[in-house]
Amino acid sequence: MAPELHQLLATFAGFGATENGGVCRLTGTPEDKAARDQFAVELAQRGLRLDLDAIGNMFGTALLASQSSDAVLVGSHLDSQPTGGRYDGVYGVLAGLLAVETIAARAAAMPGAARRNLVVVNWTNEEGARFQPSLTGSSVYAGTQSLEQALALADGNGATLGDALAAIGYRGTGALPLTPLRYVELHIEQGARLEDSATEIGLVEGAWSARKISVVFEGEASHTGPMPMPRRRDALRAAARCIDMLYEDLDEGAHASAARISVYPNSPNVVPSRVQVWFEIRHEDEAVATAIGDRFLSRIDSAIAPLGVSASIAIDERRGTALLDAAGVKIVERVADELGFSSMRMKTVAGHDALALQKRVPATLIFVPSHNGLSHNAHEFTAPEALDKGLAVLTETLWKMVTAE
Amino acid sequence: MAPELHQLLATFAGFGATENGGVCRLTGTPEDKAARDQFAVELAQRGLRLDLDAIGNMFGTALLASQSSDAVLVGSHLDSQPTGGRYDGVYGVLAGLLAVETIAARAAAMPGAARRNLVVVNWTNEEGARFQPSLTGSSVYAGTQSLEQALALADGNGATLGDALAAIGYRGTGALPLTPLRYVELHIEQGARLEDSATEIGLVEGAWSARKISVVFEGEASHTGPMPMPRRRDALRAAARCIDMLYEDLDEGAHASAARISVYPNSPNVVPSRVQVWFEIRHEDEAVATAIGDRFLSRIDSAIAPLGVSASIAIDERRGTALLDAAGVKIVERVADELGFSSMRMKTVAGHDALALQKRVPATLIFVPSHNGLSHNAHEFTAPEALDKGLAVLTETLWKMVTAE
Repeated sequence: MAPELHQLLATFAGFGATENGGVCRLTGTPEDKAARDQFAVELAQRGLRLDLDAIGNMFGTALLASQSSDAVLVGSHLDSQPTGGRYDGVYGVLAGLLAVETIAARAAAMPGAARRNLVVVNWTNEEGARFQPSLTGSSVYAGTQSLEQALALADGNGATLGDALAAIGYRGTGALPLTPLRYVELHIEQGARLEDSATEIGLVEGAWSARKISVVFEGEASHTGPMPMPRRRDALRAAARCIDMLYEDLDEGAHASAARISVYPNSPNVVPSRVQVWFEIRHEDEAVATAIGDRFLSRIDSAIAPLGVSASIAIDERRGTALLDAAGVKIVERVADELGFSSMRMKTVAGHDALALQKRVPATLIFVPSHNGLSHNAHEFTAPEALDKGLAVLTETLWKMVTAE
Repeated sequence: MAPELHQLLATFAGFGATENGGVCRLTGTPEDKAARDQFAVELAQRGLRLDLDAIGNMFGTALLASQSSDAVLVGSHLDSQPTGGRYDGVYGVLAGLLAVETIAARAAAMPGAARRNLVVVNWTNEEGARFQPSLTGSSVYAGTQSLEQALALADGNGATLGDALAAIGYRGTGALPLTPLRYVELHIEQGARLEDSATEIGLVEGAWSARKISVVFEGEASHTGPMPMPRRRDALRAAARCIDMLYEDLDEGAHASAARISVYPNSPNVVPSRVQVWFEIRHEDEAVATAIGDRFLSRIDSAIAPLGVSASIAIDERRGTALLDAAGVKIVERVADELGFSSMRMKTVAGHDALALQKRVPATLIFVPSHNGLSHNAHEFTAPEALDKGLAVLTETLWKMVTAE
């Protein structure tokens, strides 16, 4: 057991704690600030230098090789979903912190062994719960999203990410003054494949593709009482029909959801005039995800035309399948083997900061099991022993990376 | 033409005016206060005494027969839906105001003709848009809802009706010091029967029954990505299936809607764990409305059980069919005939303050046509000439009622 890891996880679970044992730590809120402040304290206590960039990413640097301007990065995110659990994101940040501490001590005892520096990172707004889209801090750092656009992202009340970060004191003016060579992230699986196969470590080779489509349904407001049924143009009725339809026609192996809806005017006595629904379609094969989305969109008009409702596409974001660095997978595989842990190669269905980083540097993603695959839920759970194994694999993986020739 | 009526309607359409020409005047808001303040000014300018009761009902009294403690009441409501039009409610209040003014002048010129007093009323929270249920002020006055419960009604943010009224200065301490004998309300139809049959005046004999059912669907939050489809317990998917189902099995002549929905956590990446939907079923025959509701509720469990979602009934409110005062219908019918206007007997599908008042005193409801039946919509429209005819019928109806032996 690594008691410090579990103490830290318990401490951070207090920031935004919910009644049922989960956390709600949305980006740019007082709860996010509390977790960030504590992370800054933990960095300072370990002698790590903090740099804060313009999108609020927090970098904690251990200068292991002062002659080098290169660094290996490790991290994840401290923000959560409204119904978040105690592990998603924060486990990767805190395990990264402890791995850096261990490696810094080891490097101090073996002068010259470390050939590059090590940085633990908290990426801003990974979840995309308050500000869409997700993976904001890591995408800005990777250069695939502009800083300006990211700061202008607005939440449901019109507040921008830039203002929210400034309000909690985390809209920085600095930058990490080192060149990133590699990125490593440790995360709970959020699915059930590791648990179902009793495997201790997941070696993530790449990611499923995702198609995220938001559709606006436009009808006409009228009284829910006297308005004759054939004259109604009910946007919620049309949306419900399309939500149903999404699940009717899924290919083998596809995942799909309609998880967010906005209804106007949302009064019990007014036929809804405007409804927006956020749909997701995911598949290991990008062509299949694309085809499901195309088929779904092509069926909407004929499905809702009899209701007098029209539809328009507000968002159609396609995330292709992605491959993570193959060499990194082999390193982690070897480390797991050396430590005597079972491992398996797999794909991630969920998005992660590692996928954003891979656009800039070789990135590596390591999974540990999730009980029942439950995540974005207060009852999200990974056994302490499993968390410890992940930390051990992460530490030895980072050691190989900072010491490699 | 009665220019004063149209000037008044235009003035009141400015309180809570929306960009597209409608109004949003929710109970207890600054917009509601502005309309109430103006109504108080209009009463004062006509020498009518204002009494304000504890639920915010405003009574403007013309003492036509000082020897009598009895009064005929006329009125409607100044609040609106979020997508309200320029006529729903406010037309009845302002036409009532002008009818009272006309009758007061006529009574002054014919001493002894008026045998009872006349009061124009603005009833609080008829719409039930911000505070559910609707018909609040008239139900409290009629004695069918307790004042305490009414003041404790909470909006979506937890603010109570009592506090909202106090905040705008309309939680009164007075009461109408007269005994109500009759109530008369003039309103736009909000359906299309009068327009479709080219009839000028609707004589409302009674109301359809309504069954209002709110169902809570409970699933389980999880990640919309990796969670295997068979393990998901998606409360929004279940709700959409039930919304669809509501319309599949409607009897001839039934009206139904699902117009309000609340989704938790409503994040694009979290399978929804809790969804509440507000359903309405209306029919002229109460037994049919009840049977549709029973059938619908009995089908829910088997429809959603395969989704791992459970349902519970949060509200099951049944408004039986109601009859309005038959003598009142005959009076209005005679008045319309004397004025040379076509009329027809009909039922109201929508709820109205007159239906709440009928529980205490004989109540009468008069309709004028609605263009295309459109209501709770910015484009709600009744031609000025049709509004004038309604005012003329209302005035002569009230004259008969205050002068009758």
